[in-house]
Amino acid sequence: MWSKLTVNMKKLTVIKDKIDQDLAELGGRSLIAQYMIKRIPPQCDPLGSQNRVVICTGIFAGTKLTTAHRLSIGSKSPLTGGIKESNSGGNAAYQMANQGIKMIEVLDVPEESGLWILHIGADGNATLKDAAIYKGCNNYEFSESMKETYGDACAVISIGCAGERLYKNASIQITEFKSGHPSRAAARGGIAAVFGSKGLKAVVIEEPVKKFEVTYVDEDKFKKVCLQLNKVIAEGAKTDPFSIIGTAATTDISGASGILPVDNFSGKFFCDYEKVGAQAFLDKLKSGGGRNRIPCQPGCVVQCSNCYNDPNGNYITSGFEYETIALFGPNCHISDLDAIARMDRLCDDIGVDTMETANSIAVCMDAGKIEWGDIPAVMGLLNELKEGTEFGDLLGQGCEAVGLQLGCKRIPVVKHQSMAGYDPRNTKGTGITYATSPMGADHTAGLTMGRAFDDAGRTGQAYASNKLQVAMCFADSMMCLFAFAHTVPVLPLLGELMAALYGGTSEFTRVATIGVTTLLTERGYNQMAGMTAQDDRLPEFFYTDRSPATGSVFDINDLELEVLFDFG
Amino acid sequence: MWSKLTVNMKKLTVIKDKIDQDLAELGGRSLIAQYMIKRIPPQCDPLGSQNRVVICTGIFAGTKLTTAHRLSIGSKSPLTGGIKESNSGGNAAYQMANQGIKMIEVLDVPEESGLWILHIGADGNATLKDAAIYKGCNNYEFSESMKETYGDACAVISIGCAGERLYKNASIQITEFKSGHPSRAAARGGIAAVFGSKGLKAVVIEEPVKKFEVTYVDEDKFKKVCLQLNKVIAEGAKTDPFSIIGTAATTDISGASGILPVDNFSGKFFCDYEKVGAQAFLDKLKSGGGRNRIPCQPGCVVQCSNCYNDPNGNYITSGFEYETIALFGPNCHISDLDAIARMDRLCDDIGVDTMETANSIAVCMDAGKIEWGDIPAVMGLLNELKEGTEFGDLLGQGCEAVGLQLGCKRIPVVKHQSMAGYDPRNTKGTGITYATSPMGADHTAGLTMGRAFDDAGRTGQAYASNKLQVAMCFADSMMCLFAFAHTVPVLPLLGELMAALYGGTSEFTRVATIGVTTLLTERGYNQMAGMTAQDDRLPEFFYTDRSPATGSVFDINDLELEVLFDFG
Repeated sequence: MWSKLTVNMKKLTVIKDKIDQDLAELGGRSLIAQYMIKRIPPQCDPLGSQNRVVICTGIFAGTKLTTAHRLSIGSKSPLTGGIKESNSGGNAAYQMANQGIKMIEVLDVPEESGLWILHIGADGNATLKDAAIYKGCNNYEFSESMKETYGDACAVISIGCAGERLYKNASIQITEFKSGHPSRAAARGGIAAVFGSKGLKAVVIEEPVKKFEVTYVDEDKFKKVCLQLNKVIAEGAKTDPFSIIGTAATTDISGASGILPVDNFSGKFFCDYEKVGAQAFLDKLKSGGGRNRIPCQPGCVVQCSNCYNDPNGNYITSGFEYETIALFGPNCHISDLDAIARMDRLCDDIGVDTMETANSIAVCMDAGKIEWGDIPAVMGLLNELKEGTEFGDLLGQGCEAVGLQLGCKRIPVVKHQSMAGYDPRNTKGTGITYATSPMGADHTAGLTMGRAFDDAGRTGQAYASNKLQVAMCFADSMMCLFAFAHTVPVLPLLGELMAALYGGTSEFTRVATIGVTTLLTERGYNQMAGMTAQDDRLPEFFYTDRSPATGSVFDINDLELEVLFDFG
Repeated sequence: MWSKLTVNMKKLTVIKDKIDQDLAELGGRSLIAQYMIKRIPPQCDPLGSQNRVVICTGIFAGTKLTTAHRLSIGSKSPLTGGIKESNSGGNAAYQMANQGIKMIEVLDVPEESGLWILHIGADGNATLKDAAIYKGCNNYEFSESMKETYGDACAVISIGCAGERLYKNASIQITEFKSGHPSRAAARGGIAAVFGSKGLKAVVIEEPVKKFEVTYVDEDKFKKVCLQLNKVIAEGAKTDPFSIIGTAATTDISGASGILPVDNFSGKFFCDYEKVGAQAFLDKLKSGGGRNRIPCQPGCVVQCSNCYNDPNGNYITSGFEYETIALFGPNCHISDLDAIARMDRLCDDIGVDTMETANSIAVCMDAGKIEWGDIPAVMGLLNELKEGTEFGDLLGQGCEAVGLQLGCKRIPVVKHQSMAGYDPRNTKGTGITYATSPMGADHTAGLTMGRAFDDAGRTGQAYASNKLQVAMCFADSMMCLFAFAHTVPVLPLLGELMAALYGGTSEFTRVATIGVTTLLTERGYNQMAGMTAQDDRLPEFFYTDRSPATGSVFDINDLELEVLFDFG
């Protein structure tokens, strides 16, 4: 039986119990939706005593399914004011599963300010340890220190100075498998600020002496189907650009098609996109002695991660992704990959979302605060964020706050969260996802780019967005999206896997229902938090200002933005 | 605790037991979907031993919620070859609830041919009674005989000669509250033929001496919310044409807009539509001493039913509906309401679906078998159906079989089931419903006509269809659609009602999830039965032949027909 840890930050207690009955067969995003709708008041102050943090594994944690150890973190978002599930790779969900812990709920706020680490020892004992000495310690130094104390295998989920300062752009960083770099992030929505408000510096999980063993209703069947699925995914990965190159493979396609954001979502074409493209990325990796095809969690067959060094072979960053390249690169009119890698490293270190932060800086450029493409000025602003200067504190409030303060006309946000590396005028389905996802402008909620829906025009894009939004809800409950993508031809196997694990029907409907129910629940939560249909819209300039690269506007009307299953 | 009756037609036994755990909180269409996916093999012969019939009440049966006593009947359809839930008003679900019976499952087929009545006595005893003497007895005579034997309050669910002969257009007739006329029908999909294949002539339910009482988790809360909902519905009914006039109110709108089918879905305009319009209908009612505003089940505040007499005041038919008027009227080029009423009566008596039958006759006219608008010829064909002549047997196979046999170019069917009284070229959302509903061309699965989606063009129609298809799935699980329509501004109350009845969450998401899960399950069933995306298409002529009335074709492409949550 899976366990649950209840951490009360007011009482400073940790209680281990069995998992709640209503959550027992859920995991990841679906678990968080059902947890939150019942246990976190939608109207609560995100940084107050009523908000909670949930940290959990996916449905298939503890099994041999490839990428089954994605980590999900949920809370009412300080950035969007709505429901938030942010997930990440790394080794933390794997060590949670080894400990037999499916979820950790963090309640209340301390009576007096302080910092604590939730430590889960090799003996399975979970305690809150005083972490006052780590105040202001950023993620690279912190995770190094934890490894020294608890060994290389320990997993660290931590916040840097940004989370401690309750920045709305603050990210939670998770250590990567083997390297131990804190380079995987539950980045979006500022949940790190909720950690900060609770005085929770980190969760550190040692590898237990005795590993938890999953109980299956039909273990033989599970192993058989799991092997079949792993083979399909491994076969798909062989020709998958995300596996061969990494997510940086996206730059060439998005750059050539006008999807790549340029100069604060101006819709312009970026002539130098190949300078930050796949080949440049691979060349840099090679010349610096870095490498790609790194698994961020044990057992991953896609292995999209990487290790990026400077030309002298000194480590800069890892998990260096397309989103960061697009938004700190062309969207800030920058085409120097090494410089972007340093920005990525600094963001991971202080614990801020690279997307929210890069967008804030692009807005600064657009408003004339700094020059387009000025790399030292960008590093200067990131250092202000690190140091907590007055302007740094503003940057920490996210792109929208910065844009409003500076009087910028183009502020690319939905539900107060800024957009990922795709201009919605040129991938309209993704724009529909940005507009309608309960998560705010989030590409992982349903990225339609690259899907063959062009012949159906905007209608097909709406369908693609809607379908993908449901699919992502169940995918985010069980595995990494990049592995999930390869399961599409054999989706019914996911139903069989659930039946072999928990019993009950093996119909795929069971899986799809998890997706639909999750999305419905998330939308319901946001409504109760006060959001309306007007929160499901893009900023006006996408409707009115043509993309110079393609001549397109975002011409999706309000009805097309409606999602099938809203009945309110 | 609700009961279940298991009727085995091979063993000729009836066993009473408590309701299955997995179905306990379901009802109507949602119960049937979950029952069928687990218990009726999708590939089975609809008329063979493996098919079953499920007869059940809605989720709120036994309560005071208005229209809570809709009756659902499910089976693998002999007409469509897929899943089928057909529901009806009348007094049968009310008497089932009084008996404490939530569902009746009918298994297997008799070893030797014969006819039986499932009789549920005032003492609650359920037995199979030999009904050989009723062979060939049609519904009006049969229900009269049952009332004489078991009293006026008894409910009768019966088949006529058409069901006995296994006609695919055969309907199951249900007695109306008070009048006792067998004029309510579970009409579509030929489930009456499954009754016939099992030798089940009828289910007769007496009013029990001691009425079953529903157990509530929170009775006071239920009563409070229920009263609130009933008031909203009653208030809405005050200005509802379905209440003031009846479904015949539709004819004027559909006639004026080209939606009314004319001359076998030719798309023409019918100049005489007012002759079969609302005013003509009311005038006829008045002159014959008939009346409208009749509740078909106890406690209904909408009261859309009617009693239709001839000019001399002699009863012809009741529950005389728009669909019958449209399809036996303008679609057969007939504008004589009295004649159409006689056709309706004959269909109810022999137990055939008026829609399937009228469409078959329109196809006969189109192919030159009889003249357009020839009323005596229509009555002649209906009598052939009644007598079981060679051509009558063909008519009994439904519109598609007749059209193929006669070489008709226009055969208005989807999944082998013919269309209701709406031309899909001029109400495209309804066309999308016809195409994609798991039920075949069924207007009750999601009729978009009259909804303000015109400004969004075809895209808005697709959304309207999809939303409504989900909404109808949960509506068909708990109440009559005409009452449900008035609950739209207060939908969250349905969640509160469920929580007060069963406990658990009161979120509306719970209700919406029932809708989505049901539709997903139904689509999954049809896929396992062998249906593909090609079964989700309209006949070609709707795409190619312009409607002369409006110039429209059905220009919805295949992607727009895709329903959100198919991932196969």
